[in-house]
Amino acid sequence: MRQILLRLKYLGTDYHGWQVQDNGIVTVQSTLQDALESIFGERIDVVGCSRTDAGVHANDYCCTFRTDADTTCYKIQGALNFKLPPDVKVFSVTEVPDDFHPRYSCTAKQYIYRIHNSVAPDPFLDGRALLYKPVIDADMLDRQAKDFIGTHDFTSLCGAKSDLEDMTRTIYDASVTRDGDEVTFSVTGDGFLYNMVRIMVGTLLFINEGKFEQGYIPKLLELKDRTKAGRTAPAHGLYLNKVFYGGEAGGGEEV
Amino acid sequence: MRQILLRLKYLGTDYHGWQVQDNGIVTVQSTLQDALESIFGERIDVVGCSRTDAGVHANDYCCTFRTDADTTCYKIQGALNFKLPPDVKVFSVTEVPDDFHPRYSCTAKQYIYRIHNSVAPDPFLDGRALLYKPVIDADMLDRQAKDFIGTHDFTSLCGAKSDLEDMTRTIYDASVTRDGDEVTFSVTGDGFLYNMVRIMVGTLLFINEGKFEQGYIPKLLELKDRTKAGRTAPAHGLYLNKVFYGGEAGGGEEV
Repeated sequence: MRQILLRLKYLGTDYHGWQVQDNGIVTVQSTLQDALESIFGERIDVVGCSRTDAGVHANDYCCTFRTDADTTCYKIQGALNFKLPPDVKVFSVTEVPDDFHPRYSCTAKQYIYRIHNSVAPDPFLDGRALLYKPVIDADMLDRQAKDFIGTHDFTSLCGAKSDLEDMTRTIYDASVTRDGDEVTFSVTGDGFLYNMVRIMVGTLLFINEGKFEQGYIPKLLELKDRTKAGRTAPAHGLYLNKVFYGGEAGGGEEV
Repeated sequence: MRQILLRLKYLGTDYHGWQVQDNGIVTVQSTLQDALESIFGERIDVVGCSRTDAGVHANDYCCTFRTDADTTCYKIQGALNFKLPPDVKVFSVTEVPDDFHPRYSCTAKQYIYRIHNSVAPDPFLDGRALLYKPVIDADMLDRQAKDFIGTHDFTSLCGAKSDLEDMTRTIYDASVTRDGDEVTFSVTGDGFLYNMVRIMVGTLLFINEGKFEQGYIPKLLELKDRTKAGRTAPAHGLYLNKVFYGGEAGGGEEV
């Protein structure tokens, strides 16, 4: 049985996230599984690297499936991209060892959050970046974002739906950069709690607006209280940007 | 009577070009005029800087209208962006002198043509760049593109629909550049014939594929025969990128 790793880009706007849902709602996973079924003539289950929420995008989403078919990776990519809709496409297909797991083998993930810092909407960024009118001090927010780096209990930055026990995660890097009127928050960590990146962004924007003072983030982490953080930023600015795998596991990028 | 200059960005995918058509087909101009009518309570005619074809995009489209209303430019921009659909937005509103004309005052225009040079489609470039699989030698095509520069009779690069008498245009600059798997053709000139940029791109791609030899463009211009040029590249890679106005006329960028 071969294990095949697919790396996808998708525009999440018209999907209820990655994960298959019971009620027949269209998700990226269900769309991909339908395409695989039409190619291989049997139901094929896909294992993803993470859940993404409704409306969240991916520049590099990793997932695997198993098959006995000897179809080449090149042909699988072509057939999948022929079957898939324009907003979900496969940019890499490789065979990986049997013990590779898209979620458990993952050593780190990088998310980016795109903000269009302007008074006027941009048709090319509609649904792809948050339109945010107050002027962002990107250098100041970059300094604030550095306070997320390290191993912390992120209870204050976890959405209400979470029922995880261990809220500790390690953030390797976090930054805020500006390119013209586009501001990008980038964060790399070993894992992320429910809505964590979007709450990080909402908290940074509250600091930008003076609703929280500069230097607030270490205090917020201490408080372990979601109600003390900023709003959850909308899904449509968020991208799963890179998935890292260590060693020889193949696929994605190495840390 | 005030003359107001609007600068727009639009995603042309769902529009039959700029120009109002008789048959009630949705165009950018008709959409904009509908929005202005709902704001000012009367039919307002808009004069554009050029026609764009169905499916062509704009990063900077300039057009004007006249009104007796004393509404501030700031309020006009806000009201228009509220009324306009997500794929057409106004990023600048200014008052210009009475003798300014968006087409006749224009000294130059710049178009870009975006090519996604890859075997796999990218959801984020769908409808926004031409997917082109053969590897592009961007440095070589850049050298070829330089042959467009200068004042030439561009009959060989004019689509069949044109009935203009004078086919002479001056191209100030032309280039092909690569950024990862995105290749961009950029061309600036005092004016462009029907489909001229798209035929330039089709001709460059034929050179890339070896269907025309390197150094073919000066010969093509001599031939004055559309059938000797490359195919017309699809509309969805083309963007009106900048519109230049000389002197004090205001609006757009100066050459």
